[in-house]
Amino acid sequence: MAALDSPELAAQVSQTGGLGSLACAMLSTNQIRDAFMKIRSITSKPINFNFFCHNPPNPDPVILNNWKRHLQKYYIELGIDTNASNSSSHRNPFNQENCELMENLKPEVVSFHFGLPDQQMVNRLKKKNIKILSSATSVEEALWLEERGVDAIIAQGSEAGGHRGIFLSSDISTQIGTMALLPQIVDAVKVPVIAAGGISDGRGILASLVLGASAAQLGTAYLFSLEAKTSPLYRHTIKNIRDNQTVLTNVFSGRPARGLFNRYVKEVGPLSELAPPFPLASSAVEPLRKKSEAQGSSDFMQIWCGQAAPLCHEMPASELTQKLANDVQQSINSLSV
Amino acid sequence: MAALDSPELAAQVSQTGGLGSLACAMLSTNQIRDAFMKIRSITSKPINFNFFCHNPPNPDPVILNNWKRHLQKYYIELGIDTNASNSSSHRNPFNQENCELMENLKPEVVSFHFGLPDQQMVNRLKKKNIKILSSATSVEEALWLEERGVDAIIAQGSEAGGHRGIFLSSDISTQIGTMALLPQIVDAVKVPVIAAGGISDGRGILASLVLGASAAQLGTAYLFSLEAKTSPLYRHTIKNIRDNQTVLTNVFSGRPARGLFNRYVKEVGPLSELAPPFPLASSAVEPLRKKSEAQGSSDFMQIWCGQAAPLCHEMPASELTQKLANDVQQSINSLSV
Repeated sequence: MAALDSPELAAQVSQTGGLGSLACAMLSTNQIRDAFMKIRSITSKPINFNFFCHNPPNPDPVILNNWKRHLQKYYIELGIDTNASNSSSHRNPFNQENCELMENLKPEVVSFHFGLPDQQMVNRLKKKNIKILSSATSVEEALWLEERGVDAIIAQGSEAGGHRGIFLSSDISTQIGTMALLPQIVDAVKVPVIAAGGISDGRGILASLVLGASAAQLGTAYLFSLEAKTSPLYRHTIKNIRDNQTVLTNVFSGRPARGLFNRYVKEVGPLSELAPPFPLASSAVEPLRKKSEAQGSSDFMQIWCGQAAPLCHEMPASELTQKLANDVQQSINSLSV
Repeated sequence: MAALDSPELAAQVSQTGGLGSLACAMLSTNQIRDAFMKIRSITSKPINFNFFCHNPPNPDPVILNNWKRHLQKYYIELGIDTNASNSSSHRNPFNQENCELMENLKPEVVSFHFGLPDQQMVNRLKKKNIKILSSATSVEEALWLEERGVDAIIAQGSEAGGHRGIFLSSDISTQIGTMALLPQIVDAVKVPVIAAGGISDGRGILASLVLGASAAQLGTAYLFSLEAKTSPLYRHTIKNIRDNQTVLTNVFSGRPARGLFNRYVKEVGPLSELAPPFPLASSAVEPLRKKSEAQGSSDFMQIWCGQAAPLCHEMPASELTQKLANDVQQSINSLSV
C-alpha cells in the first residue's frame, strides 16, 4: 500500500486489535521516524513496518530511453513535455540506514517484500526482538524464508493486489491461488502462516483460518478506509471495479503487480519486455499517471487492487477492523449449527 | 476428467454420498449408454453426466497445416512419421442425439462446460426433471447462466486443473482465484454455488462452505483414485508435481486448460497464437503425446491437474469420498473449540 496508506490508518488498525502496517518503501528516514511518532501518539499496541528488499538495478540508458520512446505517443496525446525530466523512482530497498532506524524505533514487527535483506541485517533486527515477516508465492519460497529465520510467512495468493512478492523466479504464469497455496505452505513450514490474496471480508478470513492460516492480511479492503490516501478518482474506480477487471502487469514499475486492466495496461502490457527493471520503469510512467488523473481519467493510472475489491466497503479503518472480527465470529457461529 | 474417469469411479463417489460425474465429451452414444448401465449396476444414487458445449469450428486447412508444420520438428525428434494421418479429435459438443439420450436415461444431473447448449435443449432436459449445472469463471458468466435457468453454478477458480470453463471472453489474464471468485458469485446469484479450483482436501471443502458454497467439486483429487484411468506415468507425474509447476495452456486442445508446465508447453506455449481453435489443435499433438508416454517421458504429455495436486493421495474413490466428509467434520469440530 506504499503511498496509499497513512500512519493514522496503521495506528487505527492496531488500536482496534489488528496488526497495522506502514509501507516504508517510498519514505525517507525522517518520514519513517515521523510516522512512527504519529502512530505511537495514537496507540501503544504492536505495529508493523514494511520494506521492499529488491536488488537495485544499474540504470541502463539504452533500456530507459527505449522505454521512454515507447511511451512517447502518450506524452504527446496527454500534452506532456516529452523533454521534461522525470522524478526519480523513490523505491529503495531496505538498507543500513533503515536497519539502524528500526533498531532504534523497535516496532514489534518488520516485514519484507521480494525476499529478505542481507542475513546480517535480519539478525540485527532479531537481536532487538523484532519479529520478521516476508511473503512467499510458492512452497519453495516459503521454505527459503523459513530457513533464513522468519517468524511467520505471508502466503500471497495470485488474487492479491499490488506487487507480487515473487523472488525466486520471475515467471508469473505459474503463480498460485490462495485456496491452493495456503494449505500447501501451512503443511510445508513450522512457522505460522498469514494468508493474503482475495480476502476482503469475514468469510475470507475464516476460510483462511480453516485452511490452516494463523491470521489473514488484507490490503485492498483498507484502500477503502477513510484514513487511506486513496485519491477520489482511485476510490471511485475501485468502488466500481469488477472481479474480472484486474491483471498482473509490469508496465508501471517493472515488476508484476495486480491492478486495474485499463487502457495503458492493455496497450503497453500487461507484460512488456521493454519495461526497465524494477523500480526504474516507473519514472517514465509517472507523468502519464499524474496527467491522466488530473484530467479525470483512470486510463493511465496505477490502480493497484486485488480480485476481491468488489467485496469491500468504505468506512473508517477501526470500524472495518472491528466489523471483520465480528463477521468472522458470526461465520463460526453459523457453521456450528 | 474426460478419458481419465470411469463409470466405476463416478458410481463409487455417488454410492458413498457424493455426486459422481461422468465426462461424456469423448464418448459415443453407445459408450455413454453402457456407462450409465454400468453405473446403475453399482448405485441407484444421483449421478451427473457432463458435456462440453463449444461451437465446433470449421477446420481451416491453412491453420491446421501451419500448426502441424510448427510441431514437425518434434515428430522428427520422437521418430514419428510426419505423413501419418492423425486421428480426428473426438470432442463433440452436446447435440440432439446426446439430448435425446439424456431424456431417455434421465440422470439426476447434467452439467456443461463452456456455457450452455441451445436453450431449447436445456428446456427439454429440465422438462424431464434433470438438474442443470454449468461452470462460471466470473460473476458475469454466473449471471448469464442463472438467467438461462441453471439449477446451480460451479464457480471455477483459476487454480482448477483441465479446461477453463470461460465462455464470455477468451482472455485468461483476468481469471480469478477461488478465494475471490466464490464469495462474489455467491453474492451475485440466487441459485446454489458449487466451489471448484484448488480444493483437494477437507480443509478446502470447509473453506468453500465458509465462503458461501453449497458444495465443492474436486477433479484432481479423483485423478489419484484407483478407479481413474490415469496412466502409470501420469500418476507418477502428478504424485511428484509441485504447487508452481502447472500453467494455463492452449497448446494441447486450442482452449486454455491447466496442466503440467512440461517441455512441450514451455517451448510451444504456454499460449500459442498458432494453435487451431478448440478442439482442432489436439489432432496434431496426439501422436507426440502417445509417443512421449510410450518412451517413458512426460515431456509431451497432456498432464491436466490443478494447483492443489500436492495435497492429494492415491486411494479407492469411495475411501477418498468418505475421508473428505470425515475431514470436513473434523475441521468444523476443531473450529468450534
